Parts: sequence; C-alpha cells; structure tokens
Amino acid sequence: MNEAMKLATLAKEAAPKLAQMGENEKNRVLLAMADMLERENAGILAANKLDVDAAAAKGQTRALIDRLTLDEERISAMAIGLRDVAALPDPIGEVISMWQRPNGLRIGKMRVPLGVIGMIYEARPNVTVDSAGLCIKSGNAVVLRGGSEAIHSNTAIVEILNKAGKEAGLPEGALSLITDTSREAAKELMQLCGIIDVLIPRGGAGLIRSVIENARVPVIETGVGNCHVYVDGDCDEKMAVSIVVNAKTSRPAVCNAAETLLVDEKIARTFLPVCIAALREKGVEIRGCKKTRAIVPDVKEAVEQDWYEEYLDYIMAVKVVSGVKEAIAHINKYGTKHSEAIVTKDYFAAQRFLREVDAAAVYVNASTRFTDGYEFGFGAEIGISTQKLHARGPMGLKELTTIKYIIYGEGQIR
Amino acid sequence: MNEAMKLATLAKEAAPKLAQMGENEKNRVLLAMADMLERENAGILAANKLDVDAAAAKGQTRALIDRLTLDEERISAMAIGLRDVAALPDPIGEVISMWQRPNGLRIGKMRVPLGVIGMIYEARPNVTVDSAGLCIKSGNAVVLRGGSEAIHSNTAIVEILNKAGKEAGLPEGALSLITDTSREAAKELMQLCGIIDVLIPRGGAGLIRSVIENARVPVIETGVGNCHVYVDGDCDEKMAVSIVVNAKTSRPAVCNAAETLLVDEKIARTFLPVCIAALREKGVEIRGCKKTRAIVPDVKEAVEQDWYEEYLDYIMAVKVVSGVKEAIAHINKYGTKHSEAIVTKDYFAAQRFLREVDAAAVYVNASTRFTDGYEFGFGAEIGISTQKLHARGPMGLKELTTIKYIIYGEGQIR
Repeated sequence: MNEAMKLATLAKEAAPKLAQMGENEKNRVLLAMADMLERENAGILAANKLDVDAAAAKGQTRALIDRLTLDEERISAMAIGLRDVAALPDPIGEVISMWQRPNGLRIGKMRVPLGVIGMIYEARPNVTVDSAGLCIKSGNAVVLRGGSEAIHSNTAIVEILNKAGKEAGLPEGALSLITDTSREAAKELMQLCGIIDVLIPRGGAGLIRSVIENARVPVIETGVGNCHVYVDGDCDEKMAVSIVVNAKTSRPAVCNAAETLLVDEKIARTFLPVCIAALREKGVEIRGCKKTRAIVPDVKEAVEQDWYEEYLDYIMAVKVVSGVKEAIAHINKYGTKHSEAIVTKDYFAAQRFLREVDAAAVYVNASTRFTDGYEFGFGAEIGISTQKLHARGPMGLKELTTIKYIIYGEGQIR
Repeated sequence: MNEAMKLATLAKEAAPKLAQMGENEKNRVLLAMADMLERENAGILAANKLDVDAAAAKGQTRALIDRLTLDEERISAMAIGLRDVAALPDPIGEVISMWQRPNGLRIGKMRVPLGVIGMIYEARPNVTVDSAGLCIKSGNAVVLRGGSEAIHSNTAIVEILNKAGKEAGLPEGALSLITDTSREAAKELMQLCGIIDVLIPRGGAGLIRSVIENARVPVIETGVGNCHVYVDGDCDEKMAVSIVVNAKTSRPAVCNAAETLLVDEKIARTFLPVCIAALREKGVEIRGCKKTRAIVPDVKEAVEQDWYEEYLDYIMAVKVVSGVKEAIAHINKYGTKHSEAIVTKDYFAAQRFLREVDAAAVYVNASTRFTDGYEFGFGAEIGISTQKLHARGPMGLKELTTIKYIIYGEGQIR
C-alpha cells in the first residue's frame, strides 16, 4: 500500500470520530497546537533551515526562498492563525433550515463535515498549519501533501501539531502529511476514490492543470485569476486610477490582482496617459492594444496571448473598448471567472456588469483585491474557488462542510 | 467535431443568453412546450411505437417496456410536469444574503445558473421532458443523452420542445439531444472540460460507475441506494412493521426503497416472525443472518454480499444486531449514504442515530421512501445526489444553481 493510501485510510477511520467532536473539544486541540508550535519552534526552525539551504543551493528565486523561510515571528503568526480559527463559530451541527410537511414530517438541513479532505499545495509552510486548523475546526480529517521545497519544515510542523493534538484528544490519523514528494505520490492521492471526499489544490496553474487531468476524486479548483478592471466612460477618473493601481500593484503575485485594464474609448484619450503614468510609477510594464498605443506611443504591443495571461507580475495589458458591452464580452471570453471590476457612475452600466459578467466576484467601484475570505468577513480562508460546483469564491469553514437531511416522523409511510 | 462537442459548444453559446432571461420569459417557453407536447402527441406516439417494437423484438423485460411505453395520458403527464415547473419560483437572481463590511463594501451572494448541464440517463422518455424543464427554469442550457432504447421517442420529444421553444424565445442550442447512442458518444460528453459545467447521470449502478471512471467534467452522482431500516428494542412494533413493509414494498425498484432490515436482539424473537410474515405476504423473499434463521427457520441464508446489495426487487436482507451502536456501524460500513431510518421510542437512540449515521437523509420513525424532491417540498426533482459535494439528497431547482458574489463599493482599495 502506498503512503497516500495508507494515510488516507487512517484519515477515513478518524473522520467519523472527528465529526462527532464538539466545538470545545476541537478548540482544545487547536489551542494546544498553537501553544506547542510556539513552545517548540526551535525544531521547526532547524528543519526549515535545511529547506532554505537546499533551495539556495538549487538556485531558487529570491521570491520562493522568501515564501519558504520561517522565523519566530512567522511561527507565531501561524499559532495566532490557529487561535483565530478556534475563535470562529463551529459550522458543524447548525440546522440551516427546518420545515414541516403536510404529512407532519419535520425535515431539517444540518451542516456536517465533508469527511476526508486532501490538500495539495506548494512552497509556503504556513499553508500546512492553516489547512490543518480549518479542516479540524470543520470536523474534517485531512491528508496534506506540500511541496518538496518545504518537506523538512512541513514534516516538523505536522509532527508538532500531531503531538499536541494527541495530548488534547485529536483522533489518531485525523491529520497527516505525505512525505513522499514525488509526482507519483501526488497522483496517488488524487485517485483515492471513496476515501478522499474532496481534493483542494492550492498553487499555480501547473498544479491545478495536473489535478484536473489526473484526479478521480471530487476537486475544488482554486486560484487562477486573470482579473480585469473596466473603466467606464462615465466615471470618477481619480477613483478609477486609484482602483486600477491598487488592483495591479498592491500585491501582484496573488490571484485577485488585476491583469488587464479595459478602458472605454469615450475617455481613453484623457484617462490612459494619467493611468499609465501612475502604473509606471509603481514599476508596471504596459502592453497595449493598437488604440492604446495611438494614445500613449511608447507602450509595448499586446499580442492575443496577453489577453489570456495571468502575469502575477508588474505587467498589465491595456485595451480600449467601445463600452460596457464589449468589456463584458472581453471578460467573459478571456477571464478565468475569478474577480472582475467596473468603475462607473452609470447606474445601468453597473447593473449590466453585475448581471452579465460570469465570475466568482463582480465589483462595482472597488478593487478586485478584496476577493479573500478575511476581507469578505469569513474569518478564514482555505482558498478561492474558481469553479461553480459546491463553492465559488473565497472558501471559509462553511465551504468545508456538506449537509444531511434529518427527518423527524411519527410513523409516516408513503 | 463529434456530436457531443458540437451540441455542447452550441449550448455554451446559448447559456449566457438563457441566464439573462427573466422568469416570465422562461415560463412562456415552458408553457409553449407543454402545449405543443399535447397538441402534437401523435408524432411522439408514432416514434415511441418504433422504440417499443424494437424493445419487444429484442426480448427486453416487461418492466423496461413498461417504462418505455408512452400513451396520451403519459404525454399529458409530461406537459403537466412542465406547467408545474413553470409555476415554481425562479431561483435565479435571488440574493441569499447581503452584508456590509467595516470598510463600507456591501457584499451579496446571488444565485446564478451553473451554465451547461449534461444529463445522461436510461430508458424512461419522461426524464427528457423533466430534465429540459428543470434546466431551462433554472437558466441552464442542457445537453441530453438518453438511452438507446428510447432514441426515437426522445428525438421526437426534443424536436417538439425545440419547435415550441424557438417560437417562444428559447435561445438556439439551449436544449439538445445527442442522437448517437454509442458508448463512445456518452464518453465524449463526459470529457468536455470547460464546456460542460456539470454532468448528472441518472440510472443504475453501471451507468454511475462508468461516469465516475470516465468523466473529466464535474459530476453529481445520483441514485444508488442501499437503504436500511433499524428497528430498535424500544419501539412501537406495529409502527415498525408498517414502516419496514412500506420502505421495502411500496416501490421496490427505486433508490429510496429499503434493502436491509436491522433488528435489535432485544425484540428480535417477537418482532421478526410478525415482520417477516408481513413482508412475505407482499411477496418479499427474506435473506437472514444466523440469528434471524434461528428465530424464523425457513429463511434463506444471507451471505456477506447481501449486505452490500441494492436488490431493487422483492428481496430483503435481515440482520439481528446488538443495538443502535452496531446498527449504525453496519449502516456506515455497507450503506451507500442515501436514506436510513430508525424506528424507536428512545430519545437517546434517536439522537445518536441522527448524529452518527452518515447519509443524505436520516429518518426517525418514518419510511425511507420519503427521500424525494416532491416529498421534501421542493416541487421538483432532477435526481437524488449521493455525493457530498455541491448537493446532497433530493435535487430541485436550487441545486441546479451556483452563486456569484456581487460587491458594491464607493472606491474602496486594499
């Protein structure tokens, strides 16, 4: 039996026990984990050094090494994250609605855990702690499979979480990490039908593609975001510049950052020079359509592929469109259904954009950067779903649950 | 381009138009379809005769031929079904909740269509009309793929529905039927990633298995039901007999029919002879465990496979258990997470059963046969999901939708 199947089978045995734990019991586990993470951070830091040295020796990018590197403060941040999750209300057991049928049957819709969650993710070791915390709080067993770059850190972290968990009453097998970092091991996890209830990949487009191709278990796709800001002809241009610059540059490497700016031809001549200057001031490279280049001549030419691109970088594509209709058509063709924004004063343009854009989050007069579990007020986030089934947009604790119908009768037959 | 891809691509083009149609517009389409079905039933009946004759020539079972056969009354029933769906409230556009964040952003969760639904189903031609009606009302385009036995009937039905639909404003391509009844064509439909938003198979275990193995698009599994009734030691025995007989015999061929009876050893000696006699009176064959056979000697022996079996027939497996704990363990091991019932007067046994049984619908003192969209009060049903993701239990119009977040800002940046 391979490691993925062994751990998932143990997780499946643990799942019903975890599902029956009350909120206090689960919080005790999370708080014990938080305390031990801080108390025993030396072991994690030592393990992390192995990962960081290996990454440096391999010549990895500074960005990757930064995401990988832990210090006391970052470990404390993980612990605080667990305490925050403990403080969130337990979604399990909530009866969302209950009604009575004409025959007297009372039917209730109760929130219950999904069962066993598989998580596949990449470099950052804090995802290990976040995922463990959210899965446990929502009553789910979890099998983690982090990136090879963080294997020592992740192993040390999960060991400590499980040591604390065991003392605090976490069922054995409820939390585990696949230490085999080969692609084969990831594939094995993706194919454990009947054992893994849902697989959540968190990472770049390559990982997501591999999961969609190889998975046989249900998957929640996350993360790829080719987001747009459309600046309508009738808008507060100062607000538009502020939103475009924020959406592009406040954190370009994340999925809710904007990649393409669409500008109404009615204001392109005045708006584009100002907006492009503001973007360039932040170091953004502009790739423009013909009309953009006619207005701001030193802009690089955008090719068809640019409209599809999720740069995740200081690059922005710019296209002049004839109005809200063309903007919506462009977004629905090239977008990834993540986050889309219009800046407008026009009531009808706003309504139409909200109605016709097909995306997880559609904004009027706000930055796309708000698509986030914390910003939405969920108190947590395990990823941002870009699929339509089960969960769409930021996923918090509720999105890690399913329902069961509970029916109270007095002998009814049909 | 194969037929599945051709039709699905047209459906994808139609989907955004259908998504924008208001309730009145959609109802006009459904009512026009209903009227034309009745008015032009002669063509359907002629096509149906070809299917029925072919099935008879092939030596199909009487049950299959009965499910296949249409008459004026059955066509009227389909039309009435469409009118009933038209009368249901439109789920699309509903804002389920809306809240304001500390930064002033107002975030709403709005119900929108899934997009393009693929339906794969077997013999009964009424599923064609039902599915078309539910998908259109919920704003989804749909590609149907019925069984080869009903191909002439389905083709005639869809032709009429589309003729009526076109006159009433249904976007072209929104409703179609794959006429290639080969297994290959079904597989092609299952693999149209990025075109089909969700695939719903309705049929026997073989179909469901094939879909799980071959599908690359998101699937909602339906239907397989190995359901149990557990009769607790402390119960109204007359009520228990009535529920067991109803759950087994009121319609044995459906997924919410009970397959196994579990009886508490505390009452087995008195209860089993009475209950088995009542079942036998309805023509049910009993397959019992050792303890059952010690009490009612002429019962056939149940083998391990019997506990897994979905008979869909006048056969019931019977097992004596030591109490609610063993009953729950048996159900969670052998069941298919569909519908499970306990008959008891014991408050704590009822609570425990509701809490610990892992199934879409868990009953106290009622027949498993109530797991059904109409019985639950949804006014319609497109299938019963036995998976945990997206929808669990009976699926009505709401289960054919997803959500999008709509966010109203006044220039907020992050």
